[in-house]
Amino acid sequence: MRLLTLDLLNPQLQTVQYVVRGELAIKAETYRDQLKSGGHNLPFDKVISSNIGNPQQKGLDQPPITFTRQVAALTEWPALADLAPGVFPADVVARAKGLQDEIGSIGAYSHSQGVPFIRKSVARFIEDRDGHPASPDDIFLTAGADAGVSLLINMLITDPTSGILIPIPQYPLYTATLAQHHGRGIPYLLDESSGWSTDPASISAALAKIKEDGTTPKALVVINPGEPHGRAADGRDDGGAREASNLHERERHPFTSFKKIVRDLNSPVPLVSFHSISKGVSGECGRRGGYFELTNVSEEVRALIYKLVSVGLCPPLAGQIGVDSMVRPPKEGEPSYALWKSETDAIHTALASRTKIMAQRLNALPGVSCVESPGALYLFPKIELSAKAVEVAQEKGKEPDAFYALRMLDETGICVMPGSGFGQREGEWHYRLTCLCPGVEEYVGKLERFHMGFVQKYGSA
Amino acid sequence: MRLLTLDLLNPQLQTVQYVVRGELAIKAETYRDQLKSGGHNLPFDKVISSNIGNPQQKGLDQPPITFTRQVAALTEWPALADLAPGVFPADVVARAKGLQDEIGSIGAYSHSQGVPFIRKSVARFIEDRDGHPASPDDIFLTAGADAGVSLLINMLITDPTSGILIPIPQYPLYTATLAQHHGRGIPYLLDESSGWSTDPASISAALAKIKEDGTTPKALVVINPGEPHGRAADGRDDGGAREASNLHERERHPFTSFKKIVRDLNSPVPLVSFHSISKGVSGECGRRGGYFELTNVSEEVRALIYKLVSVGLCPPLAGQIGVDSMVRPPKEGEPSYALWKSETDAIHTALASRTKIMAQRLNALPGVSCVESPGALYLFPKIELSAKAVEVAQEKGKEPDAFYALRMLDETGICVMPGSGFGQREGEWHYRLTCLCPGVEEYVGKLERFHMGFVQKYGSA
Repeated sequence: MRLLTLDLLNPQLQTVQYVVRGELAIKAETYRDQLKSGGHNLPFDKVISSNIGNPQQKGLDQPPITFTRQVAALTEWPALADLAPGVFPADVVARAKGLQDEIGSIGAYSHSQGVPFIRKSVARFIEDRDGHPASPDDIFLTAGADAGVSLLINMLITDPTSGILIPIPQYPLYTATLAQHHGRGIPYLLDESSGWSTDPASISAALAKIKEDGTTPKALVVINPGEPHGRAADGRDDGGAREASNLHERERHPFTSFKKIVRDLNSPVPLVSFHSISKGVSGECGRRGGYFELTNVSEEVRALIYKLVSVGLCPPLAGQIGVDSMVRPPKEGEPSYALWKSETDAIHTALASRTKIMAQRLNALPGVSCVESPGALYLFPKIELSAKAVEVAQEKGKEPDAFYALRMLDETGICVMPGSGFGQREGEWHYRLTCLCPGVEEYVGKLERFHMGFVQKYGSA
Repeated sequence: MRLLTLDLLNPQLQTVQYVVRGELAIKAETYRDQLKSGGHNLPFDKVISSNIGNPQQKGLDQPPITFTRQVAALTEWPALADLAPGVFPADVVARAKGLQDEIGSIGAYSHSQGVPFIRKSVARFIEDRDGHPASPDDIFLTAGADAGVSLLINMLITDPTSGILIPIPQYPLYTATLAQHHGRGIPYLLDESSGWSTDPASISAALAKIKEDGTTPKALVVINPGEPHGRAADGRDDGGAREASNLHERERHPFTSFKKIVRDLNSPVPLVSFHSISKGVSGECGRRGGYFELTNVSEEVRALIYKLVSVGLCPPLAGQIGVDSMVRPPKEGEPSYALWKSETDAIHTALASRTKIMAQRLNALPGVSCVESPGALYLFPKIELSAKAVEVAQEKGKEPDAFYALRMLDETGICVMPGSGFGQREGEWHYRLTCLCPGVEEYVGKLERFHMGFVQKYGSA
């Protein structure tokens, strides 16, 4: 008998790569601890975690929506409505009461698919958005979008030759989960020159390529928005799609869902659409709430999904209630409306303007180009690196953009993620950063000074 | 292009069996809907869900612990401490403030392994319990125990010949998760005649049996308590163990953890111990909180687990905070102590006395024998069924005990789970019921009348 060691475990799991919480994130934590304990000689006084879309993280500035938290507090301790009269607006009290009548204690397991009442709210939200019917039976509440994505990937991988088309750059959840379930990623490149749009030719090229190695394509992942959109109308997806909702320039770029397109075209394409409360104005990552909706999926598959989610018992109730608050915000005329409106407007405005300023300033730097990304919390600037920088990186055993990001963290305390963790064209380098920093001037100033110093040290490309 | 149908999906998943939320549970929901909508002619006026250990479920009677909910409400909306002065006890306000200083907003992702501060609380709780050191680095907070169990099974199954020793009867999470990850269950029978104890000979017999079919045993699951205990001292486990904590006769049956045994013996046996806030006096199932602790596990395996949990980002914050409240209850002398003490004592007392009454009354029925189970929320009575009952069940394509449970549901509205879903000796039949019903007299009366009617109709065995 001896220690449990790696050689005794599923070797497939050791192939999982997940840059978002990898070397850089761990180093950033170490710096944060050093700053906290004092007695350091770091050239910065705070660590800014621009590696994860975590809007309410300490040191970032996105406040929670008061309505969401008031409803949550009342469902946690319903006696509060009477113990603290007048503290909660009447519509919040009514909302919490309505949820409690349906749910009972939030300390109880709910229906494995999620509280039926909340699934009805989600169905109405989707109907209002798309103008097509939605059924609560087709909706599964989840612990964030990633729980649903992982389940669907597990279902779709029938054997080790199964593959799923993944946009590159991608959020590494997809490849990490595919590795976990013995499946293959089939990368298709998004087109940076046209604002990260989806080029159907790139999907065809990816499909042509796998003919050689016997990979069977099982689904296509589309992240919408995330890339500036418009591609949806092609309806060229053949399985699963992820639809996030970080959109903060709503008027200029109205959101069109894949569900709407599929129904508009009366298409038989099977579609699974994911949404969560983690990003955008909601920003409730820690609550772990989300849902997916099935379209053109057979009754038997739905029953199988129900059985599989029931093994995990139910999604967290606090997340389910968070979903309800997101899809049923206060209406005009209700007591909570004015505050909700001003809070959400402020977040939309801050994100939209900050994304714009950051993109403009980054674009003004030598060797940096950055697609403006009004549909996401993230920017993904391209950086040109000199032969010398590439050589030094290789000596250190790093990808060139990982080397750049590590130097940035060491010098500025800003933690970004290298493009190599998301995928990119051969010979290109990028990094991904969130637009969640407070004090955009100071923040971009640091990025600028670091970049100029880097270019000075290693030369231009 | 056509609907997504079962033939396109991972066939392995269709082998997953999960009785706890299967046919009976679905039928119970249908009855509940009928009762709600009126206009039925059912012979009962309420459905009692004795199929799931869900203490705070509607219609059952276990209230949440006020302290837990007060802390939760304040972390949801911290402004409440000032807006509702005097409503929260001072120790609750201090507790919530302390958590918030560490966590920031509970709408933010935490460390993937769980908030470090809460992991420290868990480590202290384990140290106090066992008298051996525990490290926060070895503790992973999870969304309930099942999330951790699923992860560990995924890790341990290296190929389709990998197997895990599972006690029979078992909670079907283990076999369901094994099916999902292409592994094999290796059943070992618990000994009903000695109070469901673990007989080492039964484990040896299970291991001898798999020599024939080439199964490689990777771990042993032990549920402790769940069976009345004492077997732990053998130290005969070789991998993973689950340790729940439903114990409500603490004085008569003090809890001894496997961790303590392993350390007492200075044993190198790798051990993973699971715990959750879902059962026992906590009863916070819907919050989805739990943890596992690694003992005798290598640094590299711990790093791999960290990487895998980071793909799921983090456990729900409300669950993590629930864990903190469970492992750090109010202390004597603190303002919340008296209420916490009276609430938890009342739950312990109610569960202990109810389990006892139910076992005694069931044992008095002809053809029924029931091990008294002071260490669990559940009873697992054995029922003898006549040849006629077995025949009728087979005609209907049901297991005999599933037929019995269906008739019980149809006649009384009580939903229990047939022993065939948990595993039992060939030719024996059982059912599992929780001891969470309010009004034990009325409840047991229904069970008695149903059983006598069944015997009258189908004869004794």
